[in-house]
Amino acid sequence: MSKFLSNLYSSLEAYTPGEQPKDKAYIKLNTNESPFPPSPEVVKAINDDVINDLNLYPDPEVSMLRTAIAERFGVNKENIFVGNGSDDVIAFSVMAFCGRGGRLACPDITYGFYPVYAQLFGVELTEVPLKEDFTVSIDHYKNFECPVIIANPNAPTGLMLSLTEVEALINQNLDRLVIMDEAYMDFGKASAAELTKKYSNLIVIQTFSKSRSLAGLRVGFAVANEEIIRDLETMRFSFNPYNINSLTLRAASAAIKDKAYYDDCIDKIIENREETKITLKEMGFKVLDSKSNFIFASHPDLSAKNLYEELKNRGILVRYFGKERIKDFVRITVGSKEQMQKVTEEIKNILKG
Amino acid sequence: MSKFLSNLYSSLEAYTPGEQPKDKAYIKLNTNESPFPPSPEVVKAINDDVINDLNLYPDPEVSMLRTAIAERFGVNKENIFVGNGSDDVIAFSVMAFCGRGGRLACPDITYGFYPVYAQLFGVELTEVPLKEDFTVSIDHYKNFECPVIIANPNAPTGLMLSLTEVEALINQNLDRLVIMDEAYMDFGKASAAELTKKYSNLIVIQTFSKSRSLAGLRVGFAVANEEIIRDLETMRFSFNPYNINSLTLRAASAAIKDKAYYDDCIDKIIENREETKITLKEMGFKVLDSKSNFIFASHPDLSAKNLYEELKNRGILVRYFGKERIKDFVRITVGSKEQMQKVTEEIKNILKG
Repeated sequence: MSKFLSNLYSSLEAYTPGEQPKDKAYIKLNTNESPFPPSPEVVKAINDDVINDLNLYPDPEVSMLRTAIAERFGVNKENIFVGNGSDDVIAFSVMAFCGRGGRLACPDITYGFYPVYAQLFGVELTEVPLKEDFTVSIDHYKNFECPVIIANPNAPTGLMLSLTEVEALINQNLDRLVIMDEAYMDFGKASAAELTKKYSNLIVIQTFSKSRSLAGLRVGFAVANEEIIRDLETMRFSFNPYNINSLTLRAASAAIKDKAYYDDCIDKIIENREETKITLKEMGFKVLDSKSNFIFASHPDLSAKNLYEELKNRGILVRYFGKERIKDFVRITVGSKEQMQKVTEEIKNILKG
Repeated sequence: MSKFLSNLYSSLEAYTPGEQPKDKAYIKLNTNESPFPPSPEVVKAINDDVINDLNLYPDPEVSMLRTAIAERFGVNKENIFVGNGSDDVIAFSVMAFCGRGGRLACPDITYGFYPVYAQLFGVELTEVPLKEDFTVSIDHYKNFECPVIIANPNAPTGLMLSLTEVEALINQNLDRLVIMDEAYMDFGKASAAELTKKYSNLIVIQTFSKSRSLAGLRVGFAVANEEIIRDLETMRFSFNPYNINSLTLRAASAAIKDKAYYDDCIDKIIENREETKITLKEMGFKVLDSKSNFIFASHPDLSAKNLYEELKNRGILVRYFGKERIKDFVRITVGSKEQMQKVTEEIKNILKG
């Protein structure tokens, strides 16, 4: 670090994104991207006229996109906040609702960015252990008065709280904020978004990066009551009011309207996930019951680190975390049928060899 | 605000972007956009293949674009930081190098976002008065040990410090960070970017929103020594590592390489600026010697507020700030020759009427 960096960040450890090696063409099953291209409506939305108008600033209110998302969820534009990816939305949420000196609780095994946000914003984080079977126990949260953030389905386990459990969590304390990070919820089909109409202490965050095949476009959003959204807008207008560019605005608006296309993609991924789970179990893997677009699995006879490395040697990238409690597991993104055949075939070869 | 918002932000007043009324088609001379479309290379860069690959995450290292910008400035990729607009870059800089409890100094009349960042990040801001003639006196900064941020050319005055003055400012204290916000520097042609090779206490920030006709794309960047850039990267990777989307990455890389196209646009804007200055002076305006793509002017017989309102009634948007010291001025973006003819003609009519 330079001598100019504030002491606040002297021990800050940044997030490490999934690797993107360029030495050869890999089958990428390490960052939970969709194997399908975005809706054809996205290509139509980014036409030459739109590009030639890029000399003008985008709409800082992000009205077109907020309206399109609101229609999908049966809420108003004023209930929707849009960020430059859901990381942006989570960052603003932690900054706004915890703040330096504040507190936050989350599971010990979850999305690795939460502890980074806590460090960045000077928030005291309590990491609440998952149960032995890697499920979240909502009972563990009932005494927390600080905001709680839960990835649901959780990453990297893929395990999901039911909507009933989520509602019970919200009801534990209506003066406490619950942030549900539903990045993978389109594959679990039990979103709490509807509950934002009933509860003012709930933020539901989703993304266009997974089920909507737009990781490269950077769009995430929050659904919540108007007051919460106004707070997030105050933060956004104090940091970067033009955070959504004009191409993103149009492309994402077109995407969210093409429900039929994405429903079909989601169904295919769920089908591939369930087939792959069976295949891996047949090979002796312990496979968690993922409701997301990835599978978290461990094998009694194969170190996860070796499996990761062997697959990488064979041109397939999966994710290995090497963290306590989950060091025996690899996380495999659910790709296309062909990709899943290839990865399971190579795993078979590795097990033989 | 909701009951969940951290008390840190109870008095936070967000930035107010230039108005974008939708009631009719205005000639927009209020947000310093370029009147020219982006380079034709930008249209070519955003092709269907690139759009169809949006299911994949963008390169979090932003390598292609950092390399292209570095080549333009004769520095290395490691000397370039890219943000989602220069606001993003300034936000990360204030957050990193001041931080909550830190301090920052800037002119009293300058880009209105600096005080917002100070509030957002809990930084104590000292607003140093411009001289009576609205120029920055570098002597006023010599006793400040905290980071200093100067827009050069300054906004909304358009007045510019010479490169000699900037170097003297840097040399006042090599242990103090100087942030030069050069959003408008392509119209002033005296960038301090070259000085980043010599001084490790300098950050130069530029944008694609003005001279490069890409306000709608959101790209800004910093040039500085490697240590400073690494610090900014630590912040970015702790907040939003994928802040630059795949379309932006390619489009901006194509743009920065098309120097000939943009040099031509810049020359035309400078020509229009100088012609408009003369015309306004002939009408009795006091016109500051702007080196940017806007003109800051006041008239002895016409209130600036009235002028702004009369022009808006006639379908032309300019910016009126209504702030002490500059309440007699309007800021007029330099647009195309036709736009400048139209605005000066309407001002003549208003003066007559």
